[in-house]
Amino acid sequence: MININTKPLSGFMELKPAEQILFNKMKSIIEENYKLFGFIPMDNPLIERKEVLFAKAGGETETQIYELKKGDSELALRFDLTVPLARYVADKYGELTFPFKRYQIAKVYRGERPQAGRFREFYQADIDVIGDEALDLSFDSEIPAIIVKVFRDLDLGDITVRINNRKIFNGLFLDLILEKDAKSIMQSIDKLDKIGEEEVKKELDKLGIEEEKVNKIFEFLNLKGTDEEILKGLSGLNIENEIFNEGINELEIVINNLKSLKIDEKYFEIDLAIARGLAYYTGTVYETRLNQYPEIGSVCSGGRYDDLASDYTNRKLPGVGISIGLSRLFDQLIKKGIIETKESTYSEILVLPLEESAKEKSLELVSLLRQNNISSEVDLNFSRKFEKRIKYADKLGIPFVIFIGEKELKENKFTLKNMETGDQQMVTFEEIVQLI
Amino acid sequence: MININTKPLSGFMELKPAEQILFNKMKSIIEENYKLFGFIPMDNPLIERKEVLFAKAGGETETQIYELKKGDSELALRFDLTVPLARYVADKYGELTFPFKRYQIAKVYRGERPQAGRFREFYQADIDVIGDEALDLSFDSEIPAIIVKVFRDLDLGDITVRINNRKIFNGLFLDLILEKDAKSIMQSIDKLDKIGEEEVKKELDKLGIEEEKVNKIFEFLNLKGTDEEILKGLSGLNIENEIFNEGINELEIVINNLKSLKIDEKYFEIDLAIARGLAYYTGTVYETRLNQYPEIGSVCSGGRYDDLASDYTNRKLPGVGISIGLSRLFDQLIKKGIIETKESTYSEILVLPLEESAKEKSLELVSLLRQNNISSEVDLNFSRKFEKRIKYADKLGIPFVIFIGEKELKENKFTLKNMETGDQQMVTFEEIVQLI
Repeated sequence: MININTKPLSGFMELKPAEQILFNKMKSIIEENYKLFGFIPMDNPLIERKEVLFAKAGGETETQIYELKKGDSELALRFDLTVPLARYVADKYGELTFPFKRYQIAKVYRGERPQAGRFREFYQADIDVIGDEALDLSFDSEIPAIIVKVFRDLDLGDITVRINNRKIFNGLFLDLILEKDAKSIMQSIDKLDKIGEEEVKKELDKLGIEEEKVNKIFEFLNLKGTDEEILKGLSGLNIENEIFNEGINELEIVINNLKSLKIDEKYFEIDLAIARGLAYYTGTVYETRLNQYPEIGSVCSGGRYDDLASDYTNRKLPGVGISIGLSRLFDQLIKKGIIETKESTYSEILVLPLEESAKEKSLELVSLLRQNNISSEVDLNFSRKFEKRIKYADKLGIPFVIFIGEKELKENKFTLKNMETGDQQMVTFEEIVQLI
Repeated sequence: MININTKPLSGFMELKPAEQILFNKMKSIIEENYKLFGFIPMDNPLIERKEVLFAKAGGETETQIYELKKGDSELALRFDLTVPLARYVADKYGELTFPFKRYQIAKVYRGERPQAGRFREFYQADIDVIGDEALDLSFDSEIPAIIVKVFRDLDLGDITVRINNRKIFNGLFLDLILEKDAKSIMQSIDKLDKIGEEEVKKELDKLGIEEEKVNKIFEFLNLKGTDEEILKGLSGLNIENEIFNEGINELEIVINNLKSLKIDEKYFEIDLAIARGLAYYTGTVYETRLNQYPEIGSVCSGGRYDDLASDYTNRKLPGVGISIGLSRLFDQLIKKGIIETKESTYSEILVLPLEESAKEKSLELVSLLRQNNISSEVDLNFSRKFEKRIKYADKLGIPFVIFIGEKELKENKFTLKNMETGDQQMVTFEEIVQLI
């Protein structure tokens, strides 16, 4: 009597083979690009001391932490990859070389209420560059270059990396004497895409912001045009604030560096409405849209921060980084039919001897194929019907089947069947290696 | 005032960059080989329902399970990769193609008491082939072929895959009317390598096994020689038991298939003392030793089982599989100096402009290098001293540095420095691509 529930847990992604292969392909494209840009891997424990996690969590995140019940130690599962990075860098400071460029593509845990598109266990694909005391602005321009390369390679159509600088906001709010409301204002501005200008204006009104200042904010937000035009427009606002001008200057350098990096200008743009509400960011900020699928929202976001690990060390460790919410992205792409699963296997060839006498030759062949780095399998299940044996290749999507029977043994050749076209031909081993 | 403990948790492996790169290389060699042999990836949640885990755990393992405290659901972290596989196959039976060949290289959790070489979070690198109702014996011979390929590629010296068949033991015990003591006897025999023949004999005596039977068991265990000689010796014992003879027959087929697969005979041998104490296994069993480092013990073990998922489904799902305890293996290899860390980076080139005027050219170059799939970085930190800038490449182990100054800009060439030899030469972009 079996009465154990074998369904995957709600809010936990569990893929079928063809989906898993597609997911791993995306993951691998991201990882290879992170390596190409000089990032090194990190793979620290999923479990952290609660004090480490709670020092940084706060708000909603704190209520979502999975705590563990083991022994007398106070343990929990990480809710992002940034906190463990901060602890790692604080702990291993003396053994690391700065700027420390690390990537990590791994699972994190948040006990959210289950809802469509939200997961309790999900992959994040992060990169961060951490400086010791200071970090050159050039890294802020490397980030969009990586985003463009990754998403071009993922082949999801045109993308736009929207770039802004938090110092521009901060300077503007200082100039308008609104710095106390900065956080609330930015949270409203973050919703601009979703709820529109009128609604945001209402929200700002509710916050008690004077109409004149709201208009000034929207005069600022509505600066549009080419990157050059926006930068010029910003200067034209005549805001005499040091931080504001520092922000413009940084933004201009980042944009110019991107041009030197030969990133096609259609892939990035200044967007003054990108606020990234989190107090965390202090300079450049990024969001990334798939132009054909704006409804997915930002697929890769991040920015510059002044101090990574202030909860764990007295050293000042500024950084810049981004995160791709890989599980959510994959889920959306599959559900919208933007990407499609194909084969459920890595095998390129199934070797299928037709009779027992061909068994030895078949084992020899599959071994030779693997030596030639051709992923392959052999089926020695002679008691199974032929139809069932070949159906295995068909169902998995193995593109080629090799038959070996009396005729093939006599001629020392193999019958190669292309499963897609149905074509069959007698070939030598060398011809197989050439064909595949 | 910082008073948060940033040390990694006891029993949790946390690697430095050079170690992580070495670890990932080993992991990647294992994964590529699993794919080469036609295995497909699985990556299911780390969290399972407690009822799923406890159905299979039992004994010591049960006390080591990490339970979670979230909400009203009864959740815990997986302690191996086999239980989640069983649940997955039971759940997705109708959507899978059998034989289902899956690999998984992932972390599992056991709250063991911390001790040298034991981890609470560790990687296992598993493969299993699962049949529907039946599974051809040919898969039992594919397994040692994979083990040999993996460990040859890991370059850890000669290995021996020791092969046995549990039916031989079972038949022998039936013949000696010792089937009730089989489990205890096999647990003693498993210690033969560690404690020697005399101690095992003492243990069997304590179990109340008659001397005559103990002698018969050791006559059996001491059958040595080539695989042929052992198989002949087994037949020569004149044990008229069907299961015993079935075991011999299966073992012979596995050995013969390995020869057809052209696996060098020095890499495998029959070892009648391999018992794999777990009741779980029912046929072929494997252990693997690194011949130069026998003290590490078995680095890859596994075997054939009759029924993977009897706790979760009424379907009979026989299988055969192995597991590499990757974290423990890596830890041992590092500690014994068998493998050594090298570079702390994937970058092959650091582009280092000598003055601001070379900034644009440098960004252009690093972008071109990446387009040519050459992992590279650029340093625009002109405020840093030259020594510090080049020391970055030196410390990480980046093999080449490219300098660009006035001279290089004028000649439209680059100075390429080999960091190992110290050699410098003026080269064109095409020459860089050719050289790297």
